[in-house]
Amino acid sequence: MESSTFLPISQFSLLPPKPHGRNRALPFRPWKLRTSHSTTLQCHKMFVPGFGEASPEAKAAKHLQDFFTYIAVKIVHAQLESYNQEAYMDLMQFLETHSLSDGDKFCADLMRESPRHKSLGTIVLMVRSAYCKNDFEWDNLQRLASKTVDERNTRLMRDYVLETSTVDRK
Amino acid sequence: MESSTFLPISQFSLLPPKPHGRNRALPFRPWKLRTSHSTTLQCHKMFVPGFGEASPEAKAAKHLQDFFTYIAVKIVHAQLESYNQEAYMDLMQFLETHSLSDGDKFCADLMRESPRHKSLGTIVLMVRSAYCKNDFEWDNLQRLASKTVDERNTRLMRDYVLETSTVDRK
Repeated sequence: MESSTFLPISQFSLLPPKPHGRNRALPFRPWKLRTSHSTTLQCHKMFVPGFGEASPEAKAAKHLQDFFTYIAVKIVHAQLESYNQEAYMDLMQFLETHSLSDGDKFCADLMRESPRHKSLGTIVLMVRSAYCKNDFEWDNLQRLASKTVDERNTRLMRDYVLETSTVDRK
Repeated sequence: MESSTFLPISQFSLLPPKPHGRNRALPFRPWKLRTSHSTTLQCHKMFVPGFGEASPEAKAAKHLQDFFTYIAVKIVHAQLESYNQEAYMDLMQFLETHSLSDGDKFCADLMRESPRHKSLGTIVLMVRSAYCKNDFEWDNLQRLASKTVDERNTRLMRDYVLETSTVDRK
């Protein structure tokens, strides 16, 4: 089978490869330097191409900002429901016509809608900052991400094995 | 102006409000309990509605999985370019017709494309796990997220002030 000679699982390792044979002389090397193509090992992290001068962490941080804006709007909206019905309705109506997918654009538009909306926008900015710095559980995020990747990988492999085993039995 | 009596910035505080006046008797209260509507303060975090039994951290962790899958594919693709042209072409062609927006679906489809693609899919699963657990800089993510929210909030406020100041001078 082709799969037995093409990048077999057993060749996947974070340790340097041992050269042998044609295909095996060109194995997958995940330990390639992250920030340098030099042959001198200075960093044991995998090289991630395509981020230019930024980093995956910076890109993830930017995506999280939109998520924090979404959460800040949820928090403000829930609070207003009990304490200020007028502002609650203002925000609800604004949400019906404006997408939260771009957090900064949402806040910028909200602040320009009217003086009342401007106050709402300012509060959303403050809440997303407070949430990011004080409330969001970063350690929990790391723990859950590690758990999630294990669970998802196991499920994908199990589903594949079950599916191919069923096909073989037909 | 309406904005002066409607949720003014000075009323935004993480400390409990001091009741005074009609509007001020119903201020925005971000210190509402996160997991309970009880009046007994057990948790000083803001209550985030809409996540049911899950948590914002769990949702963020799931989103990060798709990001880690994207990064794993980038890493594998870059490595194959130097070490296995056949596999590199296989992955490139697959990428042209399959979206990476859903990481698990991408991997499941990749593993079912052919025995050769199955090996590629397995490697992507392993790389995303290794990247999540060993390479991704979680502390750096937290630092950058905090920095980003400050920068974005400052920019949004500055742009608003500059824009409204210009309007006033006309």
